Order: sequence, then structure tokens, then C-alpha cells
Amino acid sequence: MEDSVESKLTLKSDASSEPFLYCCSACDCSEEPLRGKVFRNRTKARSMSMPSAPSSAKFRRTQSLHGPSPVTTFGPKACMLKNPKAVMHIQDPASQRLTWNKPPKSVLIIKKIRDASLSVHICCVDIVFVPCFNGFQQKNMIVYVERKVIEDPAIANESFVSIKKNICTFREDYDDISNCVDFIICLGGDGTLLYASSLFQESVSPVMAFHLGSLGFLTPFNFDTYQSQVTQVIEGNAAIILRSRLEVKVVKENREKGSVEEISLVTNGDKTMQYQVLNEVVVDRGPSSYLSNVDLFLDGHLITTVQGDGVIVSTPTGSTAYAVAAGASMIHPNVPAIMITPICPHSLSFRPIVVPAGIELKITLSCDARNTAWVSFDGRKRQEIAYGDSITITTSCFPLPSICFRDPVNDWFESLAQCLHWNVRKKQSHLSSEEEEF
Amino acid sequence: MEDSVESKLTLKSDASSEPFLYCCSACDCSEEPLRGKVFRNRTKARSMSMPSAPSSAKFRRTQSLHGPSPVTTFGPKACMLKNPKAVMHIQDPASQRLTWNKPPKSVLIIKKIRDASLSVHICCVDIVFVPCFNGFQQKNMIVYVERKVIEDPAIANESFVSIKKNICTFREDYDDISNCVDFIICLGGDGTLLYASSLFQESVSPVMAFHLGSLGFLTPFNFDTYQSQVTQVIEGNAAIILRSRLEVKVVKENREKGSVEEISLVTNGDKTMQYQVLNEVVVDRGPSSYLSNVDLFLDGHLITTVQGDGVIVSTPTGSTAYAVAAGASMIHPNVPAIMITPICPHSLSFRPIVVPAGIELKITLSCDARNTAWVSFDGRKRQEIAYGDSITITTSCFPLPSICFRDPVNDWFESLAQCLHWNVRKKQSHLSSEEEEF
Amino acid sequence: MEDSVESKLTLKSDASSEPFLYCCSACDCSEEPLRGKVFRNRTKARSMSMPSAPSSAKFRRTQSLHGPSPVTTFGPKACMLKNPKAVMHIQDPASQRLTWNKPPKSVLIIKKIRDASLSVHICCVDIVFVPCFNGFQQKNMIVYVERKVIEDPAIANESFVSIKKNICTFREDYDDISNCVDFIICLGGDGTLLYASSLFQESVSPVMAFHLGSLGFLTPFNFDTYQSQVTQVIEGNAAIILRSRLEVKVVKENREKGSVEEISLVTNGDKTMQYQVLNEVVVDRGPSSYLSNVDLFLDGHLITTVQGDGVIVSTPTGSTAYAVAAGASMIHPNVPAIMITPICPHSLSFRPIVVPAGIELKITLSCDARNTAWVSFDGRKRQEIAYGDSITITTSCFPLPSICFRDPVNDWFESLAQCLHWNVRKKQSHLSSEEEEF
Amino acid sequence: MEDSVESKLTLKSDASSEPFLYCCSACDCSEEPLRGKVFRNRTKARSMSMPSAPSSAKFRRTQSLHGPSPVTTFGPKACMLKNPKAVMHIQDPASQRLTWNKPPKSVLIIKKIRDASLSVHICCVDIVFVPCFNGFQQKNMIVYVERKVIEDPAIANESFVSIKKNICTFREDYDDISNCVDFIICLGGDGTLLYASSLFQESVSPVMAFHLGSLGFLTPFNFDTYQSQVTQVIEGNAAIILRSRLEVKVVKENREKGSVEEISLVTNGDKTMQYQVLNEVVVDRGPSSYLSNVDLFLDGHLITTVQGDGVIVSTPTGSTAYAVAAGASMIHPNVPAIMITPICPHSLSFRPIVVPAGIELKITLSCDARNTAWVSFDGRKRQEIAYGDSITITTSCFPLPSICFRDPVNDWFESLAQCLHWNVRKKQSHLSSEEEEF
Repeated sequence: MEDSVESKLTLKSDASSEPFLYCCSACDCSEEPLRGKVFRNRTKARSMSMPSAPSSAKFRRTQSLHGPSPVTTFGPKACMLKNPKAVMHIQDPASQRLTWNKPPKSVLIIKKIRDASLSVHICCVDIVFVPCFNGFQQKNMIVYVERKVIEDPAIANESFVSIKKNICTFREDYDDISNCVDFIICLGGDGTLLYASSLFQESVSPVMAFHLGSLGFLTPFNFDTYQSQVTQVIEGNAAIILRSRLEVKVVKENREKGSVEEISLVTNGDKTMQYQVLNEVVVDRGPSSYLSNVDLFLDGHLITTVQGDGVIVSTPTGSTAYAVAAGASMIHPNVPAIMITPICPHSLSFRPIVVPAGIELKITLSCDARNTAWVSFDGRKRQEIAYGDSITITTSCFPLPSICFRDPVNDWFESLAQCLHWNVRKKQSHLSSEEEEF
Repeated sequence: MEDSVESKLTLKSDASSEPFLYCCSACDCSEEPLRGKVFRNRTKARSMSMPSAPSSAKFRRTQSLHGPSPVTTFGPKACMLKNPKAVMHIQDPASQRLTWNKPPKSVLIIKKIRDASLSVHICCVDIVFVPCFNGFQQKNMIVYVERKVIEDPAIANESFVSIKKNICTFREDYDDISNCVDFIICLGGDGTLLYASSLFQESVSPVMAFHLGSLGFLTPFNFDTYQSQVTQVIEGNAAIILRSRLEVKVVKENREKGSVEEISLVTNGDKTMQYQVLNEVVVDRGPSSYLSNVDLFLDGHLITTVQGDGVIVSTPTGSTAYAVAAGASMIHPNVPAIMITPICPHSLSFRPIVVPAGIELKITLSCDARNTAWVSFDGRKRQEIAYGDSITITTSCFPLPSICFRDPVNDWFESLAQCLHWNVRKKQSHLSSEEEEF
Repeated sequence: MEDSVESKLTLKSDASSEPFLYCCSACDCSEEPLRGKVFRNRTKARSMSMPSAPSSAKFRRTQSLHGPSPVTTFGPKACMLKNPKAVMHIQDPASQRLTWNKPPKSVLIIKKIRDASLSVHICCVDIVFVPCFNGFQQKNMIVYVERKVIEDPAIANESFVSIKKNICTFREDYDDISNCVDFIICLGGDGTLLYASSLFQESVSPVMAFHLGSLGFLTPFNFDTYQSQVTQVIEGNAAIILRSRLEVKVVKENREKGSVEEISLVTNGDKTMQYQVLNEVVVDRGPSSYLSNVDLFLDGHLITTVQGDGVIVSTPTGSTAYAVAAGASMIHPNVPAIMITPICPHSLSFRPIVVPAGIELKITLSCDARNTAWVSFDGRKRQEIAYGDSITITTSCFPLPSICFRDPVNDWFESLAQCLHWNVRKKQSHLSSEEEEF
Repeated sequence: MEDSVESKLTLKSDASSEPFLYCCSACDCSEEPLRGKVFRNRTKARSMSMPSAPSSAKFRRTQSLHGPSPVTTFGPKACMLKNPKAVMHIQDPASQRLTWNKPPKSVLIIKKIRDASLSVHICCVDIVFVPCFNGFQQKNMIVYVERKVIEDPAIANESFVSIKKNICTFREDYDDISNCVDFIICLGGDGTLLYASSLFQESVSPVMAFHLGSLGFLTPFNFDTYQSQVTQVIEGNAAIILRSRLEVKVVKENREKGSVEEISLVTNGDKTMQYQVLNEVVVDRGPSSYLSNVDLFLDGHLITTVQGDGVIVSTPTGSTAYAVAAGASMIHPNVPAIMITPICPHSLSFRPIVVPAGIELKITLSCDARNTAWVSFDGRKRQEIAYGDSITITTSCFPLPSICFRDPVNDWFESLAQCLHWNVRKKQSHLSSEEEEF
């Protein structure tokens, strides 16, 4: 290795005390086993470059959310076998930002129909929906809304009627709008975003989610200053978090013929259904009073049998939803993983587990199950699973790009505190601070 | 997009229903925002290529442990802002295999001194250590052993004395053998591997760990057939798992001068210590009967205050050690993450959390702490932390390459079952199978 | 206090280091506030009686399961206000034994119909049921069996047909046999005993429960030596444990008239139902995908609102059933308590609680519940609960007297180990015993 | 049974639907097996007495905290064997009230020395302690304070010096004031009450505990209106809760002689120590980095071995202290029970258990423990336990009578909410109430 590389690496080594070490821009990692040697020299270099410590401090601002590139040489003689086909290139989630190829021309506004009360509903339409719509009109953007929302007689007040004719509508499960929508606005709670996700079985347009009441995990924006916030995003200035989704395939045995036929989603066969879920797939015992009893396979191997109320397979995003209620640890949405959480398991030792995002899971009814199981996808499309059917789950290629209020880390901890009261403790007043033993 | 690309992608699309989608070998991902469009066509392609489903089945054997490359275009107009500097290239953990640049010439055998009883100890030396040593002698490899092990009078029996002179020795904390050791053999339980890890503060040579009694999380090999297994590895045929480690820096305030000086590890300053940990960093209240009270920072922001017996910051490898005892979910070692688990927290809602591997954590004593805290690293080097000191933790560039018995997934589930009795349930006999309601 | 009392107390004081101090047989506790003074002297007495320590050891055999009578004087001047009406007399559960006023003349054999497979079922009838029946025939006892069991065509084999005519039958929910049955035999798992319990809405005859496969919490007896064991019990020599039950009253609002009428169970009104449950009352969301939302009242005060999958109100017996799966601690059945355990609660801090046996709980739908709830009793009689309905729960006067295999304590710990693998750990082999750090 | 008794019981049966059924005042329970028959008739009686339902409602106000007297006849022929020696008479905890034999003449004020800051401390003395003292002076009561508190130079301000001479002092571990103190006032947090408890190894005078900052589990009173509240108690009008304590005996093997001698507490032998604990006994690994390994015996039988950070044996009062942090369910202090909670156990299935108050526990070091254990009592008197030593624990005869602010039930739930944020949930605002799915 020549001096020039050495010196280049000396610079890089300044960052060695940083939480994140980028792979060199020239991407020498193809020349194997070079990296290990580099790293060994790096140490020497670092000790020599101590005076440059201040420049190190400068690097500190570079936050990273994926780990450092691990060395690929191990001691003096060993290294990792090079396998270019299995190399993955991912951008650090901490620096993911949204941009636009062309200015967005259409927007989908998601607003659920059902509401706590009529007065609240109308108020919500007047204060939130209509201004929101008008804002997009001024930007000359086409606004899409679900037809059911438009047709709700409850909201037939004056301000709404006047805008109604300018709204494009669609019907869930009938009209595919995924090619027409450049941008998505969600008004409501986390459920609104789950619904939005379900409309997009492949690529999802950027989503900006407003909580109308209190902060949600999926709805970081406050509606108070929506106008400036939306403008900023449309002008192309926004941090995004790619929330991974699960691709779930349900294969139902054709009981008449007694054979299993896997028919593609595209051909609309009646025996295979495919779903993209943002939070979780839940398999439970449904209305039965017997325990559910399902087998869990990882990459084709039977891993364990779940006996209990059911099992939750969730994304990291879903770890703070049903899974946390069932006892799981909480996983930041940028961790590439899938979480498996039993619901009230019969076994005391059935702790939740977290497996790598690339794994393929399969769930089937156990042969000694006394009744069928039920499956649902983000709480929707609930259906029965009989013996012979299977549910296949893996991480999807189509994440949901959600616009951050601040950034992926701060937004998450803010939600943990506000939505789940995570580690909120009694504020000790001074007079009693003298004892804080339990 | 031209036809040629289309057809190339058609082929790729065969893998689209697979759990893992490699980035194309030509790595077009630099041409942004190409991928999104590709994926939209892909769907069409897939439906056309239905007859090739059998070829799809062929791909199924490709197991993957990292998730699929997510699309980077979102809907018709949006895409991710390209930032080549923040791109990381990692090889799929499922296909990581060990190779050798040159034949390994030296081996370190780790064998702890202390033992349950003398007779067991001697037996262990005769049956395990001596044959192991002889095996490497025959391969003309230099064998390193810690001096304390050699000098243990308890093992001064005949077979051992004869080999003693041919063993190279070193002293912990005095002799740096990290450049001399090509290969590491651990004989014993998980603690043996933790000790081995502590000897290598940078790159770690490949480790092959034998459990002498029952299976451990870190010790997958059974000693019964060690000869053939070792030969196979040395000939360069082994799956490895890179177990991430944490790089921990402890900065102690120089209380005389009242200032904090960060002195590099390399200069051997007396105020900054750096450690590589394989399982976890534990901060606890030590012998104090008051609760520990420490502040936890993520990337410089105060996230929460831990009031309780302490806090565990662990690797995924460590999630099945102390963390699981403190209530954490269990994380597969290939998930790039850091786990934070409180120990007996004062707050009912302080659930463990899992954050991305790239994050930098800092722990300090809270200003209202009533006593100091104690920190230890994989259960070693226990020391006191006073007000003004800090512990900085992030994922290390230097993972521990551990040779798998079968593969990363199967080894882990085998350990879960055998070491933790994970979801082991009462085997229902037939006669009582009629009721399995709770 | 005279000497005579002093000396009497000296004797008693020998037992003072024992886990249990009986109230004196003369029951001076009516003369208040005498006890406190006695206890103060007692100490002196004890110090004088040191030589009699061996006699103390003799007392040690007296096991007790309720606590010692607490002193009722507090320091030199204070004491508890005497309230004879609120005094309760209970016999130490550790010494509860069964006896018979008259020899038992009838026996109910509980055997559930549904079975894993026909062959197992028939085998069970031949090997278990028929010999059991014959045993009682020889004792000239009338045998009751549910009609459905008798009429099951699957068991119409020879040996069974011959005994069929000598069996008395009854129909569940039609025939009240509670006055006819002196003794109950359960053949099967814990569900069999739950079924037996449901047949007796008031006093329950002694139950002897055999597990046919593996040990259950409620089925301590092995069938292998049933003949001698049954004989022993019938001859009046058996330790019993009184398993407390919950008395549950469900009041359904008469929606036509819009008023609530509480109609007694006895008049068979259609609006109030009463149940005795041995394990638990479960209120859950049923088939709804919305969280259940119920209010919980204690002695008339709203204590909390349960938002989640539901809530379990269980006896100590039931603490090892559904409640333990939902995360509860396990309570010995002799502790007079009621356990309240949320099922997957929305709140991280909703830990299970244990309240005194005498408390009256009431559960109603919250006013902001989005859907109805469902309630079931030991897994049976599942029904919907709408707004305005209420479920009232308290400890019943009618416990289930279950015959112990050994005694209440040993039976319980045996079941914990065998049914729940409680604290079953990896057996460390000797060679690896050197490290047992995590 | 004559008609007269029948009719008397008919009346009683009106209360049969109540949560609590007192044993008849005439205490017929000695005439066995009378109760069963009565209860069977009772049903008839109840159906006849339906018109008297209103009178039933009248009874409803009688709250009870112990369960109903269970029937002692089981079906037509069986009953419980009478054993008068094992009968216990306890007063319903819901109706326990304090009274005075003679007016209280002395009061102990507990005030811990150490404080968060000097200014807070002085403020606390001026605002709390001095007025409190003056109040008792006006009632002509002798005031006791610990000498260390009086001699604290920090509080040598004017108002304090003037009262100093009128205060009686004592030294912990030297002066026994248990016979001199009629009444105890605690000023501070829960730790203050634990300290007060430790001063009274036998009967404890009534305790009135004020929290100076925020509500504690053991300190229900707010200091704002202390004057009227104290007066009310001294005039003999207060509900009390008897908080059970554990009597703990530590026997240390005399290692010189190699024999175990149990020497009574009273003779002040140097080898046996006895403690009364209000919260818990904790056995842990102390400063060792190895797991603790202790054997747990119940009434002489080895129940299990605890491998982990340690084990907590707590009263119900202590269940909301360290035990809850270690994962236990929370037990109301009126439940007669002992709780056993492992601290970070090695085994996934080691769930906490609750056993009856009368049980005697013993803890010893396991024979394969690698190091000693440490024991502490309410966080105090920490000491080492070696192989051969034993810790014996049972419910004490000497509970701590704590004056309730409202009553035992409401005080407890108030503390759960305020101290532990038990089931405190995000308050849903109206606008977002539309979705509360997870």
C-alpha cells in the first residue's frame, strides 16, 4: 500500500473515535482482504495524529444510525471470503432526506369517517380538513379523498360543500390510486397511517402525518402550523424515516381439490392473498376458547410451537404497538429486524425474540391444534386459518417513507415519553428527596 | 428505459418473491432515482414470468439475514436524496465464510484456571487440553497459553509436563499477543470466550469455542470430534458469525486539577480507558444500598434518567446474558443494534429498548445521585464512576468472528432451547390431551 | 397478671420461635386489650425458658399456613378497638382434614367426552373408567355419570355396555345432582375439575382428581394406585385444601324497559346470572378488533380503567392458569386473595395486583368504550356485556374441597415444577461449572 | 336443629349475597358440622325472603377485607375435621380502629438527618419540626428525638435551640425506648418509617407518617393540616392498618468450633441476630461479580435454588418497593402472605411467588455457590452470609400499626397511582379518539 493511501487513511482515522465510520468513498472494499491491514495501520496513524483531535470533534456532528463497517480481516491471517453477490448498499438512515424528481402534483388526504361524536367530527372538518384542502388548491395540486368520507352526510356543511366538487374520489379495494398520488397527508391518529399504508401494496408516496389530538408514534406533526410545514416538505426539505413493512402472503389450501396452488397476487387468484403491513401480523385464537397452537418456521426450519392466545410478528414500528402490550422490548424503527412476540403464552419461558430483517417466517396451524386460528394485518382483513394454510412473512422492499418532525431518533423518544409514559417517574419534591430508597 | 434493462430486470424479478433481493451486481443504485421505476415495472414483469416459478424455487435456498434493499423512490415523484458518503456496503451475514490469506501458524488456547474441583480440573487437562495441544503440534503450529495456566501446580502431572516446554506463554495485561495469534481455541464456558475477547482490543482472530459440559451461547462446539472439526476450519471451510462488540471509553475527571482531559488509549494516559465488550457494559450501584441514578444520553441528547439497581448496555450477543435476566427480549446476534435494559428500575414503565447499532450512548452520574456508580465490562475491570466521569459506548469496528457449528440461525435457536429452555413446555401426554385450556 | 397465667404462658412461649402461634385454646382474646401485655411478658418468659429449647424443636412439626395472630396492643397505651361482630374464626389450612358424618353412598365420576382420538378414548374408558366404576360398585356406592358420556357411541364396547345399566345419569343444566353426590372423582386434566366445579353452585362434595397423563395443578393423583387411594379417602383419612371460588353475578340491563332489575338466581329470572368460578372470570374484547375498555370498581369506588385485550379476575388457584400467561405472579391457593391481571394492557405500568379476599369488585363497560366486551367463567358460558350491564365478583362461601396428594404446600410446588417448569434451569455439568456468569 | 335457629339464620341469609359473611356472634362454629346444613337451607330461605332485598342493600355498606367464612361441610356427608387448637380469630382488617387505654403521654418524632441540601434541611426544621414539637408541648406530651438529629450543627438556628432542652433524646442501638413511646410521628419519606420500624423489635406504638414532599406508600398524611389530624388521632378516632412484618433470624456458624449454636436474642449471643422487617429481606451477591446461588426452604423442604442477582422476601407492604422493581405483582398490605421474588434470575421461568403468611422460609448458601451472599433488612444492617449460615424468615406477631389517611383500600390505590403511576395512560383528546387501536 502506498503512502498516499496511508495518509488518506490517516485523515479518516480521525473519525475513528466517532460512532460511525463510513466506508471510504472510493469503495476499496472490493479489494479484499485490504481493509484489515488498513485498520491495523490506522491505529498507528491515530496515535500520531493526536494533535488533530479538534478536527475529530468537528466530525462528531455526523450522527449515524447504522453501525460502523466492521473490519473483514481477523488477526494476521484470516479474512472474510469475498462474495460480491451478497453485498448490500444502504444509506445511513440518519441522513436520509426526501427530494422530488418533479414537483408533486397530487395529494391524498386520509381522514377516517367514524368519529367520537358528530360535533367533534364537524369541527374537525371545518378546522382541519377544509383549510388543508384549500392550501393544496392554492398550490394547484389535485386532492384525492376516499369517496366514503366525501359522502358522509354528517359533514354536509357549507364550507365543505363548496370544495366538494374539486375533490377527486376513490373507493377502497376498487380504485388503485397508487400511481396517481405524489404525496400523502394523514389527519388523525396512528390508525389513519395504518390505513394509508394498506392502500399502497408496492411503492408508497411520502407521508406526512398530523395528530389531531395528542402525539402518536406514527403521527409526529402538530396541525397548528401545518401550512408552513407542508410548504417546506413540498419544496423538498425534509428528513424521512423509512419504516420497514412486512410482506405477508397467505396461502389457503383449496380444500375441494385437496391440493395447494400458489397463485400470484397479480392474477388475482382466489387462494393467495398478499399484504403489506406496517405494524404487525397477529395470529390468534379468534372467538375460540381453546388456546391457539401454531408452528413457527424460520427459513424453512420449525423453530417452536406457540401455545397461548396467539403470536405477533411485528416490524420495529409495530414493537411499540400491540407487541409492547404483550411484553416486548421496544425497537427503534431504523433497526432492520423482525420481532416475534407471543400473546399470553402457556410457557413461562417464552420471551419475545428479535430476528434479522432478512429472515423468512412461516406460520401454520399445528397438527395437534384443536381449532383454527385467525390472522389480521394491522388490525384489518381478519380471516380464518385452517390446517393446511400457511402465512409467510418477510421484510418488504417497500417501506413507508414517513416525514420526520425533527429526526428519527428524537421523534421516537418523544413518542415513547408522550404515548407510553416510558420511564416517567414520580417527580421527587425537594423536601422528600432525602430518601429515595425503594 | 430500454428493453435490455427490462429483460435483465425480468430475470431479477424472479427473485422478487424471495425473502432477500440482492442489489444488482452492477450496482445501479448509484443512478438515482432509477430503482423505483424498475420496481414498478418489475411487477408487470413478474406477472409475465409466471411460468418461471420453478426457477424461483431454486433461489429459495439463498438464505439472507439482512433485509432486502428497500426501494428508494416513493410514489411517482419522490425519491431519497442521494448521499454517497453515507452509503455502507455490508455482506449478507447469512453467507459470511472464513478464509485464510496464508495458512495459520499459531494458535491461542484459552483455558481458565479456576475450577470447581481439582479432580475435574486435572481430568479436563488430560482429556481436553493435552490432546488439543498435540493436535496443533502435529500441524506445526505454535501454541500460546496464558502463563498462569501453565504454572498452576494442580496440573503438574506427567502428560502435561512433557508438553509444557513447547508452549509459548504470555501474561494478561503485560504481553500483547494480538499480532501473534492466527487462530483461537476456547475450552470452557461462555466466560472463556469473554476472556478471549478482552485480550483483543482491535482485530480479533477467528475463534472456535468448545463447551466442555453443556452447550453455551458462545460455545457451540462439542469437544468429542474436535480433531476433524479443527482441521476443517484450518483448511478454510467454515461459516462465521461476526459478533458485534461495543467500544467503551471511560473518561475520569482529573479531580486534582478539576478539568477533564481526554487522553488517548495509545498514549496510555491514566485518565481514559477503552474497552471492547462482547456481552455488555453494566453500570450499577455497587455495594451502596441507595439506588443508582445515572443520566443516559443518545448522540448528545439526554434521553432519560435511570433510577434503580443499574442499567445494562448490551450487544445482541449480550441480550441473552444479563439483559435477559433483567427482562429484555432476546436479539439475534446478526441484528445491528444496541440494547439498553434497566436493572430493577424504580419506574414500572421502564421497558428495555433497542436502538440502531450506530448510535453513540453516554452515561454519567446524575447531578442528584446520592452515591457513585460502578461499571464493569463483560463482568471484568469493575471500577467506580464519580460525578464528572463519563462512559461513552458505541458499536465497535472490531467484531469477534466466531466460527459457527451449523449456521448463525440454527446455532442461536439451539442455544435458546438448551441454555434458556426457551418456550420449553410440558409435553402433553395423549390421555390428558383432551384439555389444554389454561 | 398472676403467676398461674405467667406459667401457662411460659409453656406457650416455647412455641414463640415457631412460624405459627395459635390463639390460646381458652380464647382470652375476647378480653381486650390483654394480648399485648401478655406478649411483652412473654419475652421475659422466653429468656427464662431457654433450657426448654428442645421442646421447642418438638413443636416445629406444626406447620401453619395462616400467619400468627398479631398482637392487638401497640406500645404502652394503644390497642385495637374491639369489634366482636367483625371477628372471624378460621382453621389453619395446614391442618384441614376431611371427615365423614356418614359413610358416602354415592359418587360422581367426571369424564369429558371429547378426546384427542377415538383409540385413546376407548383405551381410557377400558383402563380407567370401567375399573373405577367397578371399584365403587364393590363398595355398594351409586355411580353418577353425565348422560352424554354414557351415550357416546364411541365407547359402546363390551365392558362398558355391561356396566351401563348400573350407572345413574344426569344432564348438565337440567338435573341438579348437588344433593345426591357425596363424593366426586375427576378423570382427566384440569379442565375436568373446572367442569365439576361448575356443576355445584353451592356446597361442593369432596373432589379427588386424577391426571391421566401428566400432573396438573388441580389433578394431583396418579391413576396407577387409585384403588388404595380411593379407599383411604372414603375411610376418612385425607388432607384437603379448600380452593376458594369466586361468586360472580352478571346483571344485564333490560334494554326494552330501560331499567335494571336484579332478579334472583333462584327465581330463574332471565336477567341475572350467578356463577361460581374456580379459576377466573375473563372479560375480553371478544371478536372485536378494538381494545376493550372496562371500568373496575372496588367496594363501589372506581379504581382504574382497563384498556387492552381484557382483564382476568382470578382466585389464587387461577393465578397459575390464564393469569400467569398474562404475566402475573403465582399465588398459593391458601392465600385469601383475589388477583386482578390485565391482558396485554395499553399501559406499560399496568402491573397485576392482589387484593384481599373479602373485597367486592365490579366491572362495567366504560362510557367511552367503542364496542361491547365479552365475559367467560372458567372458560365457559361466554356472553356479551353491553353498556349498562355489570359483573360483580367476590370470594364465594363455597370453596371446592380438593383432596391433597401429599399436602397443600408440597402439591403446589410439585405442580409448579412439573406443569410450568418453574425455575427449571440448565443442569450445569461439572466440566463447565467453572463459569456460570451470565 | 330447631326452628328458632332456622329463623335466626334466615335473617342472616339476607346477607348471603354480600361480599362478607360474618361468623354468627354466638359463634356456633364449634358445633360441627352445623354450618353446611344451614347453608343449604339458606338458599331456600333466600328465595323466600326476596321482598327483603332492600334490607340487603343496607348491609352493603359493610366493607370487608378478609374473605367470607367458608362453609365447612362439603356435600351431603363430608365435613372438615374439627381441630379447635388450630382455629384463629382475626378481626376484619376493614374495621380495625385505634383506641387508647390511657391518654398517650409521650411521642417519638422521627426525622432523618441527611438531607438533599442544607437550606432545605433548615427549612424543614423550621416549618415542620418545630411546629410539630410545639404542638405536642401544648398537649403536655414528652417528645423523644434521636440524639444525632438534635446535635446536627446544621440546624442550630434560633427557633430550634429554644426547644432543644425540652426534648428527650436516645441513641440508636444503645437506648431502648420501646417501652417509653406511646405514639410515633414520622416526618419524611418511606425510609423514615422503615427506620421507625427498626427501633421496635416487638410491639410497635401507633405510627402517623407525614410525607413532606410527595405521597409515599407508607406516608399517607400531608403535613399541611397536621395539627387537627394529630389531635383527632390522639383523641382516639383513627382507622389503622396492621402492616405485617417479617421476623428474621440469622444464625452464623461459629467457624472456630465448627458447630452451630443457636443462642437466643435475649441473651445477646454474638451468633444469632433477630430482625423485624417491614418491607423486605434481600439476599444478593454483594460486591461479587458471580451470581448468587442460594437454596430456599419452605417449612424445611428444599423448594428451589435461586441463581441470579439475588432474592427478595417481602411483606405485602414491601411488594410495592424493591419487589415491584424486580417484576413482582403488587399485593395489598392486608393480604396475609409472604412474597418471594428473584432478582434478575438466570432462569426465564422464575416467576415471583406468593405463599401464605404462616410459612417458615429458610435461605442458605448452596453447596455449589462460588462466593458468599449478603443479606440486608429493609436496606439496613447489611452483612455477609457464608456457607453454613442460615436466614430464617416468617411472619412476625408484631405488625406495625399505621394510621390510615382514609382507609386501607383507598390509601393503597392512591399510592399506586401517585407513587408508581400505576396504569396511568395517555389522556386521549377528543379529536384523536377515533382510533385507539394499538
